[in-house]
Amino acid sequence: MIRDNLTMLTDFYEITMANGFLEQGVGEKEAVFDMFFRNIPDGGGFAIMAGVAQLVDYLKNLKFTDNDIEYLRNKNLFSEKFLEYLRTFKFSCDVWALEEGTPMFPGEPIVTVKGPAIQAQFVETMVLVTINHQSLIATKSNRIARAAEGRTVAEFGSRRAQSYDAAILGARAAYIGGAHGTACTISEQLFGIQTYGTMAHSWVQMFNDEYSAFKAYAETYPDSCLVLVDTYNVLKSGVPNAIKVAKEVLEPMGKRLKGIRLDSGDIAYLSKKARKMLDQAGLKDCIIMASNSLDEYIIRDLMLQNAKIDAFGVGERLITAKSSPVFGGVYKLVAVEENGELAPRIKISENIEKVTTPGFKSLYRFYDKDTNAALADLVTLHGETIDENAPYTIFHPVYNWKKTKLTNFYVKPLLKKIFDKGVCIYEEKSLDEIRDYCLKEVSTLWEEVLRFENPHTYYVDLSKDLWNLKSQLLDKYTY
Amino acid sequence: MIRDNLTMLTDFYEITMANGFLEQGVGEKEAVFDMFFRNIPDGGGFAIMAGVAQLVDYLKNLKFTDNDIEYLRNKNLFSEKFLEYLRTFKFSCDVWALEEGTPMFPGEPIVTVKGPAIQAQFVETMVLVTINHQSLIATKSNRIARAAEGRTVAEFGSRRAQSYDAAILGARAAYIGGAHGTACTISEQLFGIQTYGTMAHSWVQMFNDEYSAFKAYAETYPDSCLVLVDTYNVLKSGVPNAIKVAKEVLEPMGKRLKGIRLDSGDIAYLSKKARKMLDQAGLKDCIIMASNSLDEYIIRDLMLQNAKIDAFGVGERLITAKSSPVFGGVYKLVAVEENGELAPRIKISENIEKVTTPGFKSLYRFYDKDTNAALADLVTLHGETIDENAPYTIFHPVYNWKKTKLTNFYVKPLLKKIFDKGVCIYEEKSLDEIRDYCLKEVSTLWEEVLRFENPHTYYVDLSKDLWNLKSQLLDKYTY
Repeated sequence: MIRDNLTMLTDFYEITMANGFLEQGVGEKEAVFDMFFRNIPDGGGFAIMAGVAQLVDYLKNLKFTDNDIEYLRNKNLFSEKFLEYLRTFKFSCDVWALEEGTPMFPGEPIVTVKGPAIQAQFVETMVLVTINHQSLIATKSNRIARAAEGRTVAEFGSRRAQSYDAAILGARAAYIGGAHGTACTISEQLFGIQTYGTMAHSWVQMFNDEYSAFKAYAETYPDSCLVLVDTYNVLKSGVPNAIKVAKEVLEPMGKRLKGIRLDSGDIAYLSKKARKMLDQAGLKDCIIMASNSLDEYIIRDLMLQNAKIDAFGVGERLITAKSSPVFGGVYKLVAVEENGELAPRIKISENIEKVTTPGFKSLYRFYDKDTNAALADLVTLHGETIDENAPYTIFHPVYNWKKTKLTNFYVKPLLKKIFDKGVCIYEEKSLDEIRDYCLKEVSTLWEEVLRFENPHTYYVDLSKDLWNLKSQLLDKYTY
Repeated sequence: MIRDNLTMLTDFYEITMANGFLEQGVGEKEAVFDMFFRNIPDGGGFAIMAGVAQLVDYLKNLKFTDNDIEYLRNKNLFSEKFLEYLRTFKFSCDVWALEEGTPMFPGEPIVTVKGPAIQAQFVETMVLVTINHQSLIATKSNRIARAAEGRTVAEFGSRRAQSYDAAILGARAAYIGGAHGTACTISEQLFGIQTYGTMAHSWVQMFNDEYSAFKAYAETYPDSCLVLVDTYNVLKSGVPNAIKVAKEVLEPMGKRLKGIRLDSGDIAYLSKKARKMLDQAGLKDCIIMASNSLDEYIIRDLMLQNAKIDAFGVGERLITAKSSPVFGGVYKLVAVEENGELAPRIKISENIEKVTTPGFKSLYRFYDKDTNAALADLVTLHGETIDENAPYTIFHPVYNWKKTKLTNFYVKPLLKKIFDKGVCIYEEKSLDEIRDYCLKEVSTLWEEVLRFENPHTYYVDLSKDLWNLKSQLLDKYTY
């Protein structure tokens, strides 16, 4: 799968609509679209934003090649005027997005695109697939890293990823969310994520016996010798052979056995037995890594059982977010130019949760001045400001009588402008900076929000002006 | 995500092992690896092979660039001899694979790679991610297409795919399994898969009212006018406006309304009501498309409720195989050169199902001569032949007393050679040929195997010689 850009990775209706907008003379009308999501994967208390750097790449490289235009011409659906428009297409929208690593909540604008309707509409598919995928994996990885309570988490899932980018960018997103590294080599090459990896069962099987295999590995990699001990029998063969190699091969060279890996069987039991055997052999510094169908639930159980594991290799359940494999972000029109002004738009639905919040908006997070704890998020009309020196009363958007008066706070605007009239003004950060920011921001959340089961619902309220606008439009469109 | 090849999409341990094999002088030993899987997603009765064409692309383009080698050199782990080996790397293995579209079962070799150990080992990650992903989606798509009983199934999931290749190649795999088309434009461009797509809610919201929006669309696309009717209210507004446009805009032009799409609410109820309204307006030829969180289970329920739906747009639950999002294919060493001959290898495990079937093997399918029904599959040692003119007794690999005598059959070898000593001999087929082959081969399966719930377990047996070999090795390695 070789390719030079992803402009044509788009739902076909984006193209039929684009041509239609142009034909109908509404293509250049200013429009505003919001990306937001309705539910948090795994019933969690928050999600993690990721994928913005790849969204920026896409928007910077947006162009229709001669091949693309020829393909579209052959559909016999589109006007020559439209094909000429595509040939000279130049992205000219304003774009805002949450910073990667930001904890985020349902109903919040997380990406906003404002510009000519034809353009702001067209980018929908790529905005969604990019942010949905990486946010899904970053969110899952953060849960797994929290379950591991500081122990090393290595992303091991490439072989079970939903194709190539899911492996490559999934490793990136997993790192942002809190994983410490990956087995995916190209992800280290592209993003500088630490790789992990020593041997498969086939290494052990290639040699005449397990001891010869471990010995060969120790001789090749005396400084990073971690051996897989479950090819034949963990306690009768694997661990004794690992100890023998530590004593007979590594120690004479002045080297230490770095670790063993368990990949099957009862990990809790085996790790405790193996730990004892290693300790009794004077190998207290030898780590135990485990890697068999792990996720945050299994890891938490292993910790509760006092399993002796120093590092977790997490595969398919992280790279596919197996227990909840869809991040359901949507991209909706919220305002469109009418008589030279932006007029808000709403989408009504039988499903209450599918009703959108209209208008061009901003998003603020309130933090406690003393503790830096995140107190609430507030969605406002664009341009509303918040006075940090006066109390601010927030209220529940449905049960309005539920009010909270916030005092002693400071606020941060969360949406950062990344394109200004098509010009990229995104400030690139290193993946380590993004990861540090993520972990720091997660630490500002109450522990009740961090809980895996039935987490507290974090406040995401609307400003009075935005709430009034939404109420008016709801009245107008329902009958 | 621009890239020129995927050689470095590999688990890091493939590289540490490759260097180790070379250092230890075993890199050029002949080795045989099998890909196989242990469980069928969604508890189904069979899976569908897909992804071979992309595996071929990968193997043909396998090469290490100067950048790759420099990156590896900087790890300070690998010998210069190894880096030089990579610089002049030339793939020289034999490779066999099932044809794309073939129904396949747990425990069968579906890809076999035979060649220098260092090479046959190295390709593991890409063999697995390629075949695992597309087989997952083709298998899911086949279930959904069967639930739809001949009605159109369009793959609509790009925005919820697990990144870009999952969208692009997922559309390909969905088509192989039985979907009729996709919304993913680049997949039509690359693979010729029919695209579908007309309008989003935003099209409706861009105009002053719903009727104006439908009218504008009908004027732009009089030959393919399918309108989305749930932006405000399906029965009070959407369907009446669609009918009005059919009468007032399309019919005066001599055109017909092609269809309406329902995307929310109670689809069974709404489709029946809408069908009546359309029929009464003389629009019996206007199709009804539905698209809201569909999968094989919901579609089957809609059919049972006699919903009036002609076409299904299936999104996130197809493109991620949401209910069972991992295809667990593995890649295991089954034989390695010893004293100039291939010696079989086995992997023992506490988990019975994780024990491998040793040896370089072939795979045959038995068909009934009269009905062409698939009777059983047989895994044999490589080179075993089956006499089609004599009865053949198969037996259960665990409960040996369970025997079946097959008569009046013919057999097909299922593994096709696609690389011969590194030279690609894969015969490329069009996607339509692959899809036709898939649907034809699925039709050879008993309906008890096709069932969604508790399907009959299709026979996959071992030949007597292979069973004997496996038994001997099991005895040898357990104590």
